[in-house]
Amino acid sequence: MSLPETVRLSPTPEDYAYTFGGRAPLVTVQPGTVVELTTEDCFGGKVRGTGDLPSQVCVFPYLNPVTGPIAVAGAEPGDVLAVHFAEITPAREYGVSSTFPHFGALTATHTTAMLHAPLEERVWVYELDAKAGVCRFRARNSGFTVDLPLDPMHGTVGVAPAAGEVLASITPGAHGGNLDTPEMRAGTTAYFRVNVEGGLLAIGDGHARQGEGEVCGTAVEAAMRTTVIVDLVKGGGPAWPRLENDDFLISTGSARPLEDAFRISQHDLVGWTGDLLGLDQLDAYQLVSQAGLAPAANVCDTNYTMVAKLPKTLLGRARAYDGLHDRLRRTAEAYLRHR
Amino acid sequence: MSLPETVRLSPTPEDYAYTFGGRAPLVTVQPGTVVELTTEDCFGGKVRGTGDLPSQVCVFPYLNPVTGPIAVAGAEPGDVLAVHFAEITPAREYGVSSTFPHFGALTATHTTAMLHAPLEERVWVYELDAKAGVCRFRARNSGFTVDLPLDPMHGTVGVAPAAGEVLASITPGAHGGNLDTPEMRAGTTAYFRVNVEGGLLAIGDGHARQGEGEVCGTAVEAAMRTTVIVDLVKGGGPAWPRLENDDFLISTGSARPLEDAFRISQHDLVGWTGDLLGLDQLDAYQLVSQAGLAPAANVCDTNYTMVAKLPKTLLGRARAYDGLHDRLRRTAEAYLRHR
Amino acid sequence: MSLPETVRLSPTPEDYAYTFGGRAPLVTVQPGTVVELTTEDCFGGKVRGTGDLPSQVCVFPYLNPVTGPIAVAGAEPGDVLAVHFAEITPAREYGVSSTFPHFGALTATHTTAMLHAPLEERVWVYELDAKAGVCRFRARNSGFTVDLPLDPMHGTVGVAPAAGEVLASITPGAHGGNLDTPEMRAGTTAYFRVNVEGGLLAIGDGHARQGEGEVCGTAVEAAMRTTVIVDLVKGGGPAWPRLENDDFLISTGSARPLEDAFRISQHDLVGWTGDLLGLDQLDAYQLVSQAGLAPAANVCDTNYTMVAKLPKTLLGRARAYDGLHDRLRRTAEAYLRHR
Amino acid sequence: MSLPETVRLSPTPEDYAYTFGGRAPLVTVQPGTVVELTTEDCFGGKVRGTGDLPSQVCVFPYLNPVTGPIAVAGAEPGDVLAVHFAEITPAREYGVSSTFPHFGALTATHTTAMLHAPLEERVWVYELDAKAGVCRFRARNSGFTVDLPLDPMHGTVGVAPAAGEVLASITPGAHGGNLDTPEMRAGTTAYFRVNVEGGLLAIGDGHARQGEGEVCGTAVEAAMRTTVIVDLVKGGGPAWPRLENDDFLISTGSARPLEDAFRISQHDLVGWTGDLLGLDQLDAYQLVSQAGLAPAANVCDTNYTMVAKLPKTLLGRARAYDGLHDRLRRTAEAYLRHR
Repeated sequence: MSLPETVRLSPTPEDYAYTFGGRAPLVTVQPGTVVELTTEDCFGGKVRGTGDLPSQVCVFPYLNPVTGPIAVAGAEPGDVLAVHFAEITPAREYGVSSTFPHFGALTATHTTAMLHAPLEERVWVYELDAKAGVCRFRARNSGFTVDLPLDPMHGTVGVAPAAGEVLASITPGAHGGNLDTPEMRAGTTAYFRVNVEGGLLAIGDGHARQGEGEVCGTAVEAAMRTTVIVDLVKGGGPAWPRLENDDFLISTGSARPLEDAFRISQHDLVGWTGDLLGLDQLDAYQLVSQAGLAPAANVCDTNYTMVAKLPKTLLGRARAYDGLHDRLRRTAEAYLRHR
Repeated sequence: MSLPETVRLSPTPEDYAYTFGGRAPLVTVQPGTVVELTTEDCFGGKVRGTGDLPSQVCVFPYLNPVTGPIAVAGAEPGDVLAVHFAEITPAREYGVSSTFPHFGALTATHTTAMLHAPLEERVWVYELDAKAGVCRFRARNSGFTVDLPLDPMHGTVGVAPAAGEVLASITPGAHGGNLDTPEMRAGTTAYFRVNVEGGLLAIGDGHARQGEGEVCGTAVEAAMRTTVIVDLVKGGGPAWPRLENDDFLISTGSARPLEDAFRISQHDLVGWTGDLLGLDQLDAYQLVSQAGLAPAANVCDTNYTMVAKLPKTLLGRARAYDGLHDRLRRTAEAYLRHR
Repeated sequence: MSLPETVRLSPTPEDYAYTFGGRAPLVTVQPGTVVELTTEDCFGGKVRGTGDLPSQVCVFPYLNPVTGPIAVAGAEPGDVLAVHFAEITPAREYGVSSTFPHFGALTATHTTAMLHAPLEERVWVYELDAKAGVCRFRARNSGFTVDLPLDPMHGTVGVAPAAGEVLASITPGAHGGNLDTPEMRAGTTAYFRVNVEGGLLAIGDGHARQGEGEVCGTAVEAAMRTTVIVDLVKGGGPAWPRLENDDFLISTGSARPLEDAFRISQHDLVGWTGDLLGLDQLDAYQLVSQAGLAPAANVCDTNYTMVAKLPKTLLGRARAYDGLHDRLRRTAEAYLRHR
Repeated sequence: MSLPETVRLSPTPEDYAYTFGGRAPLVTVQPGTVVELTTEDCFGGKVRGTGDLPSQVCVFPYLNPVTGPIAVAGAEPGDVLAVHFAEITPAREYGVSSTFPHFGALTATHTTAMLHAPLEERVWVYELDAKAGVCRFRARNSGFTVDLPLDPMHGTVGVAPAAGEVLASITPGAHGGNLDTPEMRAGTTAYFRVNVEGGLLAIGDGHARQGEGEVCGTAVEAAMRTTVIVDLVKGGGPAWPRLENDDFLISTGSARPLEDAFRISQHDLVGWTGDLLGLDQLDAYQLVSQAGLAPAANVCDTNYTMVAKLPKTLLGRARAYDGLHDRLRRTAEAYLRHR
């Protein structure tokens, strides 16, 4: 096995994108390329302490910067752009979280419009200890502290949308984007349908960890150093982003209301399962109904996201995308070992 | 430790209830009593083979029979009725599932009203092997089979509603009812707010297993032999049903749209966590946001249900309801050992 | 034309019902009977001035009293119980409205659960001038006043629910109940499916007027003196309540999310239109799409309600329920003239 | 009164835009300019008979062409771009409507994802008689015909979105776009917040008429000859599009679920009413609750749209935007008289 080509991508502040679509690629890579990249946190790195209120230190719409876009040579509409996360490491020794005026699941928002004044805007700073694998929560209004498992991931991963649309990086959808699912961790392969030449992958919004649903609207936001392998499958692009890890097939759906996000993800998983196992639609529906998992990803963004998971133990010898995940997983391990 | 008093409850067909509320208790028990009970499946046992279409063999509204109600001596409005599931065992060697006209998450329904004809009504029969711990799925339109882990649970557990309401047993809500969460398995304690004298607990709708979301509308439906301990805490009844197992605090919310079910469950978990850890509301909101899990329970019933889970490792020495779950767990183990 | 039999129904405070279902009838009438009845306002008459905050003077669940139930002789499940509103007159010279903690469309509620403190609870008293046909709004925090047209109606009209359910009078649904549509005014006939012997009609929650959507959660709440004609059609009960006035066929749908209420009402109107005009489903769908109106009824109750309206000018000679509305309208006019 | 400057805009097929944002202006006009423009129907004029199924003759994403964008000289972010509809006249003697696979309110869609096959795709052709003011519906599966009032309007009117987004012309939102409300007829002034230099107004999707909710997904789609006056108010741009006619103030909200569209529109109308009448928030909330109307606009597009209407009779001498609507109305009448 020869190691893949490697590209490094460390954007300057001017390089960051705040949309999917509408931007020329920063770099074009061949399928199979390893990309070592850095990402800034969703606040652009401007929230560094509990006194840095996001609504004061950040300037709309310069929130949630993404690194990219990365064009993949040969990617055409309808193809699958695959991105395998080999490694995601916090770039600083802290992460931050906050409430934000009229953003989150348990507050009135600009669309769930109400007459309430915003909740208090409050910032929490977490110490990240990569060696110990923990991030430390400190209550702001009491002495309580507790260590949570470090579980680094990217909230925002996607490609340029279809139909000439340009979408803010805070929006999740059929193009991916701000899915905010904890499943987007190292060891996972994500599959996106290519909508424009080159696909135009971008990645950002690292989280040291997040709960399912991201109920307060932000995770433990952290700048990241991330290693991915970018690959391409001709044809067969899925209607909605899919993920795969060693244990699960994972479909995503992003929409409102939340039951539509659920429906999309389950509908996709039923189709995917049926295709892999040669089941008709109702038999696949039945199998997913009894064997599937359905955690919330985010219930705070401009679309909500649910994921639908099926244990790969049910698949027998069937392999999604011809075993691409397994190959990328092995390549990633080899790369990291020899780096 | 002396073993608790034991009551047996095996309803005849005429005994089954189809509502929460509106029924006199079948039995009154003292707090701490073990109840060994049997439940029929949601089809009233009438679906026994793939030719038994539910819409033909069942008669609306005689669906989803529940065993009970069981009154708890001394239970008054505002109290907590606790029910610990010691054991849930399939009563037959098969379970059944089906699609059902205009019922389920990926079909038009009577409320998500559309012009589509119903999906095909199809029945699946699962072989249950309690010893091997598996239930076998057989595709109807191909030779595919696969063994799924047996994971017995009750879809429907609740008490009489508040405000004099009587609700069909297929409805989940603040009174519990048809929550259809796989968390309602042996080893779990459920807590309900008492709304009427005696509380009036009823239990039914056993599932040999179910996926999260119960997307096709039915689980692997099975008659059960179930052992519970019924207990009472004076005062402190939660607004919505709560569950606890050895590893998690679990809040539930049942509403439409699904984000409201999510909001209720997270709101309750934020309050519960804050109470147990002495955190103010925003600190608890933050902690739950980063540490919580949020799987779907059902997205097919008359209300949808989400659960919100917090790992008990975060609680330090704090114990919900003064450690009631641990005590019931130990009592249940002792009871089962000596039975 | 001989005048119909007349029954008077003036409940004492103990007579009021707070649910649909679960109550014995106060009176049984023959089809075609005129009932002259009185109703209390949704606060039970306890809010009489701006200092009477509902959360302090009312006791849950004793809200929204309804007058009835009225059994109709011969009514059997599946029939149509028709109620024609001949006259609705405010019983007092004032009406009241209020915000109420965690109730309304622009506030967090117990199901759209959030961390906000309730909005201010504030009461408005409207002077009602039946002769001038106005109700006067007075701002509480400024000297602004304005006269609004008096437009008396009943928010809550319904029958006993199906499947043995008993539902709080604040809930709208397939049985009617708290529909809170301004269409329920004098000159309108409402049609309900009978679910139990006698049907068990109840009426309450008079509004001197209300806006579409009832956004703050309450209308100009007023005790009423109301004259209805109660009638019966054997068979043909509609799945959801329907209304008819001289100008429109009106279908209702009550559900969450609001698009499901919309879907139900449109689905019913498509079916009704197709039946009356002999159109197939898609032709009726098309006609309703271009000719229908779709105002909100309430977006604040435990279910939301939308109505779907079709101008009767499109119907040619077709008449709903064999022209029952026209006959009841004429009878009502004769009755009122000769009373 | 001198007549305003006039600009004519008749796009060739290559000129049409399919997005809001992402396009250079076709023309730049001074505030107060009359623009006489033509628009193609939502099918790009390709559906001309009942055999022209949209899914076969149209090519995604080349649906819903809009005419523009039109830049307004001096328009800066935060300003109000006002567009008064002086005249909207069907350009052909027919309009068309259709069902479309997985589009509409009473069908499964790509986001309300279900397992149903699409409904039948069927086209209806309406004869438009501008002189008689009618459009004639002909059932496809029977001999039924009926004349509906002609009520020409534009479904799609908006400006470039904020935050660098480019949105498909089928999407309604804070930038306007595909609001699909019958209120957008001649005699109405629409107000949009300017998000980019010039504002970049575009107009399309003429309807000979539509029902509220546009339940089947399409209206009586028609190419139009339309006269507008485009104007500018410095500062004060509303968060969501507003409309005004001689009788009503109208706020819009576009979101999912439908209750959020309702909330946005009501929230905006409460604020607008309070500003104009000097009422505090709760007094304005109360007044809108009792006096407002709330019809559906569309319940089929990528966001749903509700409108909130307040009778201008309540306003006394208060005038929105300093009486701009009245001035534009008079100017339009003078222009049309002297043209």
